[in-house]
Amino acid sequence: MSLGRTVQVEVARVGGGRTLSLEDVVATEEPLEIRIVGAGPGGPITTRASITMRTPGNDFELAAGFLVTEGIVRSPRDIARIDYCLGETLSEQEFNVVSVELLPTVTVDESVLARNFYMTSSCGVCGKASLDSLRAQGCQPVPFGGSQLAEAVLYRLHDELRRSQDVFQQTGGLHAAGLFTFGGELVVSREDVGRHNAVDKVVGERCLAGELPASDHVLVVSGRASFEIIQKAAMAGIPVVAAVGAPSSMAVDTAEAFSMTLVGFLKRDGFNVYAGASRIALSI
Amino acid sequence: MSLGRTVQVEVARVGGGRTLSLEDVVATEEPLEIRIVGAGPGGPITTRASITMRTPGNDFELAAGFLVTEGIVRSPRDIARIDYCLGETLSEQEFNVVSVELLPTVTVDESVLARNFYMTSSCGVCGKASLDSLRAQGCQPVPFGGSQLAEAVLYRLHDELRRSQDVFQQTGGLHAAGLFTFGGELVVSREDVGRHNAVDKVVGERCLAGELPASDHVLVVSGRASFEIIQKAAMAGIPVVAAVGAPSSMAVDTAEAFSMTLVGFLKRDGFNVYAGASRIALSI
Repeated sequence: MSLGRTVQVEVARVGGGRTLSLEDVVATEEPLEIRIVGAGPGGPITTRASITMRTPGNDFELAAGFLVTEGIVRSPRDIARIDYCLGETLSEQEFNVVSVELLPTVTVDESVLARNFYMTSSCGVCGKASLDSLRAQGCQPVPFGGSQLAEAVLYRLHDELRRSQDVFQQTGGLHAAGLFTFGGELVVSREDVGRHNAVDKVVGERCLAGELPASDHVLVVSGRASFEIIQKAAMAGIPVVAAVGAPSSMAVDTAEAFSMTLVGFLKRDGFNVYAGASRIALSI
Repeated sequence: MSLGRTVQVEVARVGGGRTLSLEDVVATEEPLEIRIVGAGPGGPITTRASITMRTPGNDFELAAGFLVTEGIVRSPRDIARIDYCLGETLSEQEFNVVSVELLPTVTVDESVLARNFYMTSSCGVCGKASLDSLRAQGCQPVPFGGSQLAEAVLYRLHDELRRSQDVFQQTGGLHAAGLFTFGGELVVSREDVGRHNAVDKVVGERCLAGELPASDHVLVVSGRASFEIIQKAAMAGIPVVAAVGAPSSMAVDTAEAFSMTLVGFLKRDGFNVYAGASRIALSI
């Protein structure tokens, strides 16, 4: 048994001078708790790493990706096993807790989990402190691999991502993230009610496949580009992020700080480049 | 000095066979720390309540609204004062910490701040536990006030909300939340990079005006309706939520659990009703 990605609901559709009662589907939103089982001085220690509202499916990828983007896991070799925490009597909600057992060689700094991303003691809380704290977490500038992403490829990616979205087509209610090669080939795409979760699922899939850092790849996101999205891409070593929506100021600052390329308002016939334009090969 | 709601950036606009270098504006995204100063056994105690990435502006409303939707503050009479935490030398980031001093009569249960919304000891983590925990926080079914919201009014609200969005029109990058009377009159609208923050700002404005619960009002949100949005509306006693986007399964469940009306896919000529259809007066 596992939770479905959609739920059937009764809906009254109003408009055009009439009301229809019909069955519709909405995207499932359920909490997921991610636990880490790590080596402690006196034996294994279980710590709650996160609780997020997510769409069920690819939960192990979500857990792995979350740990990568938080700087706790760096490769599949850090992970001993990933499991649902199932009790003796199976019940649906037990598919809402995933436990990631790390190898004893991986030490988890408790303060990393308790830490506050956006704070340093010196300056209170600010954008600059957020970037400093990402660096302290091991986030490094993404190297320029030499290859470029062609303008014409970027134009195709919006539609390619949309085509890969099964659940969106049913519900209109999910964010998507897709990882493409610079040649425009789809590597993996994932959907979720939370856009950060969609990105974590993509990063987790690549982590578990042993394919991080994802150099010479572009991450396409269906919504806007916030600090959180760029931060996650940086931790996965993805050099280019292209968002269908607008970027925020911190997204631009973060992309610049980590030598990444940030594209916004990606359409079939145009886009804006907010950082790292040298990775894009223009047609003319 | 205060932080602006937009930031000017250099952008390369690519498309139509050419590239233009131009100045563009993006929505500001900066962290905000919300602190509570409450009465402790040995004197005032300062606790960090939250850190959120937000668009500066209406920060006191955001702080007040957050505390209302978390069940800590119920009326402006609970609040002694709200301030930025300014040091001796003013610097920009000091506008990123807001402190809310509660009256000594308000007791803050530390466990409320430390608590986990989505968890009860009995069943791990699941949707049902999330609803139980909302009830434990004081969230109650929203009473049916007797008045209805007319179908024709709903059709107008999408455009009304958009018209109120200053920053969106400049940047295309902000979520909006607007509170309207059942007659369709705009009471307050707020924008933010985080849609939960836009809702908190609206709720905070109403709290500080002494106008909660917001009975016979409708909250219109520019994006999708998730659990978090419905939960915040429930805590503010807002009976109707209308989202331009799709609802999630937990949004539908939460609206049903608290006797609220949930409208999705709000357009100029139609909408879907997912819960509480009896509050809507259909034209035919």
